[in-house]
Amino acid sequence: MITLDSKRLTVLKQEVFEANLALPKAGLVKLTWGNVSVIDRELGVIVIKPSGVAYDVMRAEDMVVTDLDGKTLMEDVLAPSSDLATHVILYREFPEIGAVVHTHSKWAVAWAQAKRDIPAYGTTHADAFYGQVPCTRELTATEITQDYEAETGNVIVETFKNRGLDPTAVPGVIVSSHGPFTWGKTAAKAVEHSLILDEVADMAFQSEQLEHDLTAIPSYLLDKHYYRKHGADAYYGQE
Amino acid sequence: MITLDSKRLTVLKQEVFEANLALPKAGLVKLTWGNVSVIDRELGVIVIKPSGVAYDVMRAEDMVVTDLDGKTLMEDVLAPSSDLATHVILYREFPEIGAVVHTHSKWAVAWAQAKRDIPAYGTTHADAFYGQVPCTRELTATEITQDYEAETGNVIVETFKNRGLDPTAVPGVIVSSHGPFTWGKTAAKAVEHSLILDEVADMAFQSEQLEHDLTAIPSYLLDKHYYRKHGADAYYGQE
Amino acid sequence: MITLDSKRLTVLKQEVFEANLALPKAGLVKLTWGNVSVIDRELGVIVIKPSGVAYDVMRAEDMVVTDLDGKTLMEDVLAPSSDLATHVILYREFPEIGAVVHTHSKWAVAWAQAKRDIPAYGTTHADAFYGQVPCTRELTATEITQDYEAETGNVIVETFKNRGLDPTAVPGVIVSSHGPFTWGKTAAKAVEHSLILDEVADMAFQSEQLEHDLTAIPSYLLDKHYYRKHGADAYYGQE
Amino acid sequence: MITLDSKRLTVLKQEVFEANLALPKAGLVKLTWGNVSVIDRELGVIVIKPSGVAYDVMRAEDMVVTDLDGKTLMEDVLAPSSDLATHVILYREFPEIGAVVHTHSKWAVAWAQAKRDIPAYGTTHADAFYGQVPCTRELTATEITQDYEAETGNVIVETFKNRGLDPTAVPGVIVSSHGPFTWGKTAAKAVEHSLILDEVADMAFQSEQLEHDLTAIPSYLLDKHYYRKHGADAYYGQE
Repeated sequence: MITLDSKRLTVLKQEVFEANLALPKAGLVKLTWGNVSVIDRELGVIVIKPSGVAYDVMRAEDMVVTDLDGKTLMEDVLAPSSDLATHVILYREFPEIGAVVHTHSKWAVAWAQAKRDIPAYGTTHADAFYGQVPCTRELTATEITQDYEAETGNVIVETFKNRGLDPTAVPGVIVSSHGPFTWGKTAAKAVEHSLILDEVADMAFQSEQLEHDLTAIPSYLLDKHYYRKHGADAYYGQE
Repeated sequence: MITLDSKRLTVLKQEVFEANLALPKAGLVKLTWGNVSVIDRELGVIVIKPSGVAYDVMRAEDMVVTDLDGKTLMEDVLAPSSDLATHVILYREFPEIGAVVHTHSKWAVAWAQAKRDIPAYGTTHADAFYGQVPCTRELTATEITQDYEAETGNVIVETFKNRGLDPTAVPGVIVSSHGPFTWGKTAAKAVEHSLILDEVADMAFQSEQLEHDLTAIPSYLLDKHYYRKHGADAYYGQE
Repeated sequence: MITLDSKRLTVLKQEVFEANLALPKAGLVKLTWGNVSVIDRELGVIVIKPSGVAYDVMRAEDMVVTDLDGKTLMEDVLAPSSDLATHVILYREFPEIGAVVHTHSKWAVAWAQAKRDIPAYGTTHADAFYGQVPCTRELTATEITQDYEAETGNVIVETFKNRGLDPTAVPGVIVSSHGPFTWGKTAAKAVEHSLILDEVADMAFQSEQLEHDLTAIPSYLLDKHYYRKHGADAYYGQE
Repeated sequence: MITLDSKRLTVLKQEVFEANLALPKAGLVKLTWGNVSVIDRELGVIVIKPSGVAYDVMRAEDMVVTDLDGKTLMEDVLAPSSDLATHVILYREFPEIGAVVHTHSKWAVAWAQAKRDIPAYGTTHADAFYGQVPCTRELTATEITQDYEAETGNVIVETFKNRGLDPTAVPGVIVSSHGPFTWGKTAAKAVEHSLILDEVADMAFQSEQLEHDLTAIPSYLLDKHYYRKHGADAYYGQE
């Protein structure tokens, strides 16, 4: 066991705790179907929700602290979220991200179960995701049997690599037959991306019911909305 | 009338009362369209919601106590839920269960009215139900006319027997043209299964709208998620 | 102006006021899109919501009192709901009813706009409506132009007469291209029917999406559920 | 900088502030996806929400005051909503309107993404919108790249001109691939139109799922409902 700055850990635990509570409040999580973690790369720790603990009894101090390989760093603690290994892979392969969120939010799951990418059909989508939200390929029997949660992380990374996607421009994914993972600089941002992902999944669903041969918005509209909010020339929001 | 341990009964009534209140709170029940019961096999009693009493005036002491055949055990009590006979059959034929819940929750009813099993399209489903949630065959005119509520129990049991299903691995069913019944070790677990059943019914519905030729998830993914949460090698949640 | 028993009127106004407030609370009414009235046939009065008054400023004393032809009975009062003439016709032609509710609740309106009856696809429906909820024919240009609100009442009555329906067994209707009217012995019952109508409209909609060639439930199941709750041999609820 | 009547400005800011808060409360806006402005043509000012400020920390004094060209009139203020230029065009071209609202409400966006007008399928629609709610053509690459927000205003105006629509009779529009703009005499009325637009977009969607070959209501029903609430012979509501 290593010595850790307890003040910094307290702040991280509070951040993770509040972000976890924000999920059921936003209607994105029922029962215990979600988890949020943050990484402090300088301190070398990941802080994540404990596994299967009801939101109304969970406390900030219950958040679990691990090293960057997901090994628990304190004694007498609760077991971490069973999806921890997925978070660990995402932090290792996406060095720009500071937090990861996983939910079973209804509309994102609907697309995941249909094994389809979520097309960018409008500006609500383009404001947050630079292009379609990808759906991973299905995991193989071997991947599922041998190291399921880590392989879930691997297939996300593979999806981004094979398609040449930048995880800061497309801050989320849906895992085939499973559900969404999102990320961001902070836990609050990762939660926000989770909310937006479910909302655009809903809107895209409804639009397809209205018009069966819908195509994605043109690149110049995607560019306009994405870069209005992101990057050096952004002019949405306050300085 | 037999002598009963009044303290144990009080605890049972409180459990049933709270579980009944949890249903409208979770959006699973409108008006008085639901009922929860528990069985205490040692004590030889079933405790169930009274029939047609509004949730906001119902008290724990109003819960009705019957023997294992559904005969009321106390004088001057309210009439038990009209679905009691269904609960009695389920307790008799499924000896592992400790509580039963019936609702008319929207999405489960939609599948029941469509007379279709709910396929396991994803991990949300697999976490709680080991395979599709079966829909019973339709009751015959004779069954409906002669002993409707008991025959509803019988057709559920028949469905599980004919398909070789284990009621602890598939803790729920939808009755054709009617709605869902779920069960569990405790009233809280049975309510939780009711919530999950409606949620996966919703997700499965939406997924089919997105992809018309969808097939159930492969058995290895079903196994992985089900056994991650259930059985000797489960590793979800705390010890 | 006639002399009226002011105590009885106060009770009636309170009943109408509370029933009107129950509609937005149940999610059945947005803005001012609904109205409830009651009739006291002995007293010879109808009491109805004023037209276009926001629910959060409306008071019990604002309810408008009219005679059985819909003529306002007091001075200096608010204008009655613009749908009053429809209520008047329903009270005249359906002597068993004591209250009428009109809303633009979403799912009932969806069927009304589709100009389709709502089929009885399950027991939730059969518990309250003895058979399909009828959709009226469209009003003619002349009916709409000359005496719109009264003709809306007339077309409802025509629908029940032509189809041989009993308004106590089918306590509601949807008016083509418009929305639902329901009724009952009391304002609370009429509101309850409004809630059930929207709920079964929702369930029927979803069931058809799941199974395109769905047929109504057989008459013996309809009978069983309807008569379990209604009539001399009812055994649902308390004595 | 010009001298302004600070009392009148305070009233305007309060009106804009309250109307902005009404949007998330009505479920029409998530995160910061909406904005309301009002114009005082006598005073020569537009008052609009600041860009990207969270609703729970926003104060009435944060509302931004501009001239009729959208130029900020005070020092040290927050940046105005990035959609300000659209509002400016609408105020210039539609001289009867006093307030503008923009949201990304789910059902209106679904139609906008499907690039379809919302047909008038029933009386709920006809009560507020005199005919279908138009969807603009798509903006060209040049329009999007060069002056996006102003061109959004221009394409709305073009749509009304080309189709001969009166913006006081059709107080809203959906912008192709984007979402709804509504307007009214006051901020409260513009918000109300925003709520109605989303509700009728929802109802029209569901009606089409029930009946695939639906046509708009006849002109005499449209006339009846629209003129029952609007114009010299209106008889809905109080004097």
